[in-house]
Amino acid sequence: MAASLTFLLGIRYPIIQAPMVGVSTPELAAAVSNAGGLGSIGIGACDVPAARRMIEETRALTGQPFNVNLFCHRPAVADAAREAAWLQHLRPLFEEFGATPPAALAEIYTSFVVDEAMLALLLELRPAVASFHFGLPPTPWIAALREAGVVTLACATTPAEAARIEDAGVDAIVAQGAEAGGHRGVFEPEHGDACIGTLALVRLIAGGTRRPVIAAGGIMDGAGIAAAMALGAAGAQLGTAFVLSPESAANQAYRDALSGPRAQHTAITSAISGRPARGLINRMHSEVGVPGAPRAPDYPIAYDAGKALNAAASAAGSDQFAAQWAGQGAALARALPAAELIDVLVREWQQAGVP
Amino acid sequence: MAASLTFLLGIRYPIIQAPMVGVSTPELAAAVSNAGGLGSIGIGACDVPAARRMIEETRALTGQPFNVNLFCHRPAVADAAREAAWLQHLRPLFEEFGATPPAALAEIYTSFVVDEAMLALLLELRPAVASFHFGLPPTPWIAALREAGVVTLACATTPAEAARIEDAGVDAIVAQGAEAGGHRGVFEPEHGDACIGTLALVRLIAGGTRRPVIAAGGIMDGAGIAAAMALGAAGAQLGTAFVLSPESAANQAYRDALSGPRAQHTAITSAISGRPARGLINRMHSEVGVPGAPRAPDYPIAYDAGKALNAAASAAGSDQFAAQWAGQGAALARALPAAELIDVLVREWQQAGVP
Repeated sequence: MAASLTFLLGIRYPIIQAPMVGVSTPELAAAVSNAGGLGSIGIGACDVPAARRMIEETRALTGQPFNVNLFCHRPAVADAAREAAWLQHLRPLFEEFGATPPAALAEIYTSFVVDEAMLALLLELRPAVASFHFGLPPTPWIAALREAGVVTLACATTPAEAARIEDAGVDAIVAQGAEAGGHRGVFEPEHGDACIGTLALVRLIAGGTRRPVIAAGGIMDGAGIAAAMALGAAGAQLGTAFVLSPESAANQAYRDALSGPRAQHTAITSAISGRPARGLINRMHSEVGVPGAPRAPDYPIAYDAGKALNAAASAAGSDQFAAQWAGQGAALARALPAAELIDVLVREWQQAGVP
Repeated sequence: MAASLTFLLGIRYPIIQAPMVGVSTPELAAAVSNAGGLGSIGIGACDVPAARRMIEETRALTGQPFNVNLFCHRPAVADAAREAAWLQHLRPLFEEFGATPPAALAEIYTSFVVDEAMLALLLELRPAVASFHFGLPPTPWIAALREAGVVTLACATTPAEAARIEDAGVDAIVAQGAEAGGHRGVFEPEHGDACIGTLALVRLIAGGTRRPVIAAGGIMDGAGIAAAMALGAAGAQLGTAFVLSPESAANQAYRDALSGPRAQHTAITSAISGRPARGLINRMHSEVGVPGAPRAPDYPIAYDAGKALNAAASAAGSDQFAAQWAGQGAALARALPAAELIDVLVREWQQAGVP
């Protein structure tokens, strides 16, 4: 199982560092790839020039394969009334920090599914691996990436999404359990989120596909990797486990929160970005994304508001409105350099005694 | 790890059939225990005479250890206005089936925490194992059970609950992940439910206790057992995996639902019983436990209403209001006699190659 994935990806260990836009860096991805895992960078929040820079920076730091992650959400539908209601909902919080909400909100990221220039960049630069989150790009694009020698991965939160990924010709499936930190990969969140736990999800998906399955969600150590492999996964993806690495872009407040008692409590909210995502519980969960709140604008329009509120709060010394994504295993995060963490994970995995 | 639990419980394989009131039977528990696992019966819905009968019936079918499960919820607080509002909420559904709601609702089960007569029964009959759900009985009762030679287990859904269990002197901890079918074991659901997935929860709890940990939630086969052991569990508890066994009390509608496409969709609702529980999605989820619905009465007062509604619907041929508990791995359930399922689980576990 593991051999199928390591061969496919050209890596030594079937351990993937999750993309994590805002946290991952070329340094983190390269350190993981140089240590024998698969490092990832996320370009979902980049325009084409920034994506080019990030890929080239990573390439300058490693000759090993790495993964470039793309956001494949349905493009946002602007709705001035909904956005105004949301800003009104946030207004007292802005005022608490002596700020005013932005006058209007923008779709701050372009979805890859409509970004032909980004496809052209990938076909030009040909990273070893590209991964899709929130859905899938047009099927011909997946074929074009394959023809260019780019291995593709896509994230599934249900067996039905996994079947769509397999049908589209993607090479391997990331099974993202409900434990996972960051944005839920669910294709159509307006139809709900089954929140299937990693243990059940990997088993359900692995039994229904011949593609390699990569387990994600709550895996923090070699025991978790061993468990994933026992469930039939061919690899494991870890995100939160890498946030405290010195190579990550996490700021000090995020590191402090993840290293202390707040790491014991995570929850999923759509209030920060407009799409459900799991993070350390803060006032975005307890005061913004509450029952009776207006419906948040489409992702990523809501994120424009969330980032503005976080900027105002941060300027006043509060990290209570930050996106501090973390999975349910957060309390097990270790502050180790990425290469050392890979070594530890491999050793622990071997000690757990699973093939 | 596994050896510590099999020695403690006096069983051959560290595989526990979950109690499942309404589904488990003396026949099911005895078949599991006779096959080398630990069978369980649930007496949470029994008065003392019925509990005595159920324990004695099980004992007549097996000389092996079995587990007697107790509900340890905070006793219900009656609230006539809240109950009337709930019955009013259900009225149109009763009327759809040509029935009328009951005039009043009762606390249909007595919590073990106030049932000294049940404690006396256990101290008299001395089952090999007793397990606690929804919380803990008074600490002196746990000590009395130990002195009587009864091994105790208790269910935790968070590391904090696990710590309370360990502090109370319970012998082993059932770590119930969010995948699990049936009632969430959460001690105080009014303070929320962290819904921690099995993979993360087992790891978090196993790292913080010296008591054996039994993984529960989403485990359907030997691969799941192998994963649980890799995570540091000493045993695995499976419920949904046994519902289709001929020895279970599940009715035909429940078996049909669990064997078909409905098994792909489960959700947690408090609408059926007044406490959060995971089951196959039906109209109790989609029409009763919906945003804006009145707050359900305390457990198990709400269950009195739910059972009456289900009786009316069932009489009219609908199973859309039944408690068809199921975990997120439900689609992997197999219709095997319990002893054969234990054999298959052990073989699969060995094949997964985990110590």
